[in-house]
Amino acid sequence: MKNLKKLINDIVLRNTDNLFNTDFLLTWEKSMADVEQVLDIAEALKSLRSHNIDTSVFKSGLAISQFRDNSTRTRFSFTSAANLLGLALQDLDEGKSQISHGETVRETVNMISFLSDIIGIRDDMYLGAGNAYMREVGDALDDGFEQGVLPQRPGIINLQCDIDHPTQAMADLAHLKQYFGSLENLKGKKLAMTWAYSPSYGKPLSVPQGIIGLLTRFGMEVELAHPEGYGLIPEVIETAARQAKETGGSFKVVNSMDEAFKNADIVYPKSWAPYEVMGQRTELLRNNDHAGLKVLEQKALKNNAKFMDWEADANKMKLTKNGEALYMHCLPADISGVSCEKGEVSADVFEKYRIETYKEAGYKPYLIAAMMLSNRYEDPGKVLSELLKKGTKRKM
Amino acid sequence: MKNLKKLINDIVLRNTDNLFNTDFLLTWEKSMADVEQVLDIAEALKSLRSHNIDTSVFKSGLAISQFRDNSTRTRFSFTSAANLLGLALQDLDEGKSQISHGETVRETVNMISFLSDIIGIRDDMYLGAGNAYMREVGDALDDGFEQGVLPQRPGIINLQCDIDHPTQAMADLAHLKQYFGSLENLKGKKLAMTWAYSPSYGKPLSVPQGIIGLLTRFGMEVELAHPEGYGLIPEVIETAARQAKETGGSFKVVNSMDEAFKNADIVYPKSWAPYEVMGQRTELLRNNDHAGLKVLEQKALKNNAKFMDWEADANKMKLTKNGEALYMHCLPADISGVSCEKGEVSADVFEKYRIETYKEAGYKPYLIAAMMLSNRYEDPGKVLSELLKKGTKRKM
Amino acid sequence: MKNLKKLINDIVLRNTDNLFNTDFLLTWEKSMADVEQVLDIAEALKSLRSHNIDTSVFKSGLAISQFRDNSTRTRFSFTSAANLLGLALQDLDEGKSQISHGETVRETVNMISFLSDIIGIRDDMYLGAGNAYMREVGDALDDGFEQGVLPQRPGIINLQCDIDHPTQAMADLAHLKQYFGSLENLKGKKLAMTWAYSPSYGKPLSVPQGIIGLLTRFGMEVELAHPEGYGLIPEVIETAARQAKETGGSFKVVNSMDEAFKNADIVYPKSWAPYEVMGQRTELLRNNDHAGLKVLEQKALKNNAKFMDWEADANKMKLTKNGEALYMHCLPADISGVSCEKGEVSADVFEKYRIETYKEAGYKPYLIAAMMLSNRYEDPGKVLSELLKKGTKRKM
Repeated sequence: MKNLKKLINDIVLRNTDNLFNTDFLLTWEKSMADVEQVLDIAEALKSLRSHNIDTSVFKSGLAISQFRDNSTRTRFSFTSAANLLGLALQDLDEGKSQISHGETVRETVNMISFLSDIIGIRDDMYLGAGNAYMREVGDALDDGFEQGVLPQRPGIINLQCDIDHPTQAMADLAHLKQYFGSLENLKGKKLAMTWAYSPSYGKPLSVPQGIIGLLTRFGMEVELAHPEGYGLIPEVIETAARQAKETGGSFKVVNSMDEAFKNADIVYPKSWAPYEVMGQRTELLRNNDHAGLKVLEQKALKNNAKFMDWEADANKMKLTKNGEALYMHCLPADISGVSCEKGEVSADVFEKYRIETYKEAGYKPYLIAAMMLSNRYEDPGKVLSELLKKGTKRKM
Repeated sequence: MKNLKKLINDIVLRNTDNLFNTDFLLTWEKSMADVEQVLDIAEALKSLRSHNIDTSVFKSGLAISQFRDNSTRTRFSFTSAANLLGLALQDLDEGKSQISHGETVRETVNMISFLSDIIGIRDDMYLGAGNAYMREVGDALDDGFEQGVLPQRPGIINLQCDIDHPTQAMADLAHLKQYFGSLENLKGKKLAMTWAYSPSYGKPLSVPQGIIGLLTRFGMEVELAHPEGYGLIPEVIETAARQAKETGGSFKVVNSMDEAFKNADIVYPKSWAPYEVMGQRTELLRNNDHAGLKVLEQKALKNNAKFMDWEADANKMKLTKNGEALYMHCLPADISGVSCEKGEVSADVFEKYRIETYKEAGYKPYLIAAMMLSNRYEDPGKVLSELLKKGTKRKM
Repeated sequence: MKNLKKLINDIVLRNTDNLFNTDFLLTWEKSMADVEQVLDIAEALKSLRSHNIDTSVFKSGLAISQFRDNSTRTRFSFTSAANLLGLALQDLDEGKSQISHGETVRETVNMISFLSDIIGIRDDMYLGAGNAYMREVGDALDDGFEQGVLPQRPGIINLQCDIDHPTQAMADLAHLKQYFGSLENLKGKKLAMTWAYSPSYGKPLSVPQGIIGLLTRFGMEVELAHPEGYGLIPEVIETAARQAKETGGSFKVVNSMDEAFKNADIVYPKSWAPYEVMGQRTELLRNNDHAGLKVLEQKALKNNAKFMDWEADANKMKLTKNGEALYMHCLPADISGVSCEKGEVSADVFEKYRIETYKEAGYKPYLIAAMMLSNRYEDPGKVLSELLKKGTKRKM
């Protein structure tokens, strides 16, 4: 309880920049104070719940989710976060709605927002489109609010787009903070964000981009490794490099998993599609060119197959700092011999770190709730402080 | 706040007829006091929310929705209304349920209602069937309640049927009241409810019927315009004519959009299928006659195409009172050059009134909530008064 | 109110064995005190609600449902139960999720449970698999909780598996208790759980198994009747026989509906697939052998057709005690001339008992809520007592 009081006091005193009434779309649009604030609010919410203290700051209100791609864990994290704060979930399912009937985004967005507080969106299938869609939604909300259509301007939370996956990256950061004891302790640690082999193609780039876009801000030695031709969005690479420089860390791109693993404190082996393939895929999908897509898939899979040795196995783990680097993954991982014949990680390595990856995922509901709270409340510290003081039991 | 207190006082003092424990199926089954009461309750709820006052009058309870046709805006309005009052939503999705497995309506209705307070139904596809279905549901609920199966008799709200679209018509009325300052000010105003061209066929008749069935009760000059052969249900036409006469207004059917627009204060151009086509369509759908349906669609679209000049464009708007009539639409509109090549309204006219149509739609969640509240509470004024007195914050 | 206070006092004083923090998977894994406790809690919750007393014991929290087979009534019962206690529902829809993407059960179960209190599962399609799946989920939850992944270990409620349908059997028991006045009055009563003809095949065995697995514990004369070859799972038969012996009742298997109906106080005619057919079906489904499934279906339906006289009609009902046995069914029933040409029950017999079957179903939401409450609270009597004392209104 004493720690919790101190934590809430830190939240009260911190000056943030782009949280209140500001969408959470890319972590690098947020200041370091913003990032720390969201981490601390998440921790405070988690602590309040563990002390069985009610955190329903809304008596009514909707959190809307729009998943333009499949999701289990993020869907449940978003629902859990909404429920934790007292909001009811309403899913915008384009199959069930009239969106296909020629409604423009601008109109739909207003129609669903009359009594909504938060909108969470996953749109990660099309390179160049997902984040843009979220900003289009934001513009429509701004317009609706300014024109008096909406009594409030709901906040948007990016639940994964083509550029970033901020709820994942922030959960990963929370996990690292807990694992290494503090954000300060991350300074000088080597993180290997590396491509890994997968028998599928077309996986979004948002996780590796989210990781290098956030973790280069803590003075870490970040090494991005991938086979030639598997590059990420150039602007994100530039951002990562700039941030590393600014915080006294480093950022390097290499074409060898072994090199990245060497002496690493943390490894994050994860498959993704090459930037160029994602671009071509987007074009083909837009043109409904199914034949073209098949050709592209075959070509991409064939190319992937050249790099089947990009697997995090016991031998590669031996290369890391004392052979004991922390293995991370956003889940689900392609585990060799478990979920596929040959994949991103060997079964023994995954099993060793399985519980850690589950804990990593467990931060997500609280981080989403923290994003919601800091978006809706100008003084989230005061809100948390009142919750603690009231001390209403969550479970009677 | 002073206005709100006066409004709530009006609600307390008003004697209503068919609201408490009575389904909301057709506006013309409600007295004028009922209509005014629902409008006022909606306004009070909107005002309470804008003052951040909690309106959860239920600590638990379900609002069930059954959408037998697609919906975005009404679905979100219904969810928002339920949430505003503290009810949780449960959708009855016939795809997921065992209804198709030979359950009778009577049985299903009881099975879903043990702890339900409200059932909202959209069933607008079949002429002669949608409203009848709602009454069948109502009879089953009456029976279940009388026989002791149900501890309460849930109220039904018509979310659009083959005859009326009361939540839309009431939202439209609320918009007109706000736009013209009062219901009294509607007296003598000319409203043109007119058919408009659309490149689709089979749109329900419920919106135009809902409009003439409600707005002929305020002493307005209501003109219904449509091409020959695009008539509405005869009984609704009779009701409209009778009501206009009783309230010192007028009701006229013409076959020219221009004539209807002439000197109009309000225009409501909206496509619908001819009554006869809807009847044939219902028959063909019942017989699963897909070939017959295709022939009918082709015939209907071909016939529609004769009336492509029934479009609300700038020239037609010039015919209206000072060229400044209020344009209304239930949305989504078929906008020429935007959502279709040629449609109900030109892009410039729609854009001019776009924000007004969004505001029009914004009344719907509160009107549905008002229908719920007046159905469940014998003295809704007292309830609202207590909410105001308590003044619990919706958002902490 | 006096009765309610006495009822709650009984709950406070009763010592139970396997309720708190223990999954509800099979009724015969629970002690008689457990069974009586759940019945009494359900009755207390029903009474509190009928007195308009709020029973939300959670301020936030999720109840997760996973329906691997269609459901209307159980889905609504589960939602109602969750809502009654203040939990929000989140459905785990395998179509919408990434489960098909190679996630293991172990992982998914942890991912959805970070802030969940209850998980309800229906998995009744595969003989030998449904109950096993629930235990696999339970093991994953145990592991996640022990390893510190989950802050609490959610409780599992069996919403129908291949072996038992405990929420149905308990609702049936509650109905019998009310109908005959007490559990003691069931002693010596004859219950005929009999197979009945249906024009479908592949119906689960869980209802008859649930009935003989629970109702042999009250000193009743239980007679299971089915055509030769329509046997149930042998272990359940053994359990039923043992329990009947222990409680001074009897258990008998016969091959004649008439014999079972003779002098019966209660009849439960319900179709199911033969144990052997369900086993073969499971095998064929696993192998995706569609041709084999068609052959099996034809064979099974042809065999069913030999027993079309296994219909509960007026003549058969005359064989029962004074011709007035209570007819029971889990619904929906195959009613001859109503939901099918020839089915489990004649239209006149069903109509006579229709309202009783609806009341039978009406206990289910409260029984599920009682299972939730007793799983989450070590002292449910104290909780109910506090709710009564507080007396917060459910409906303002």
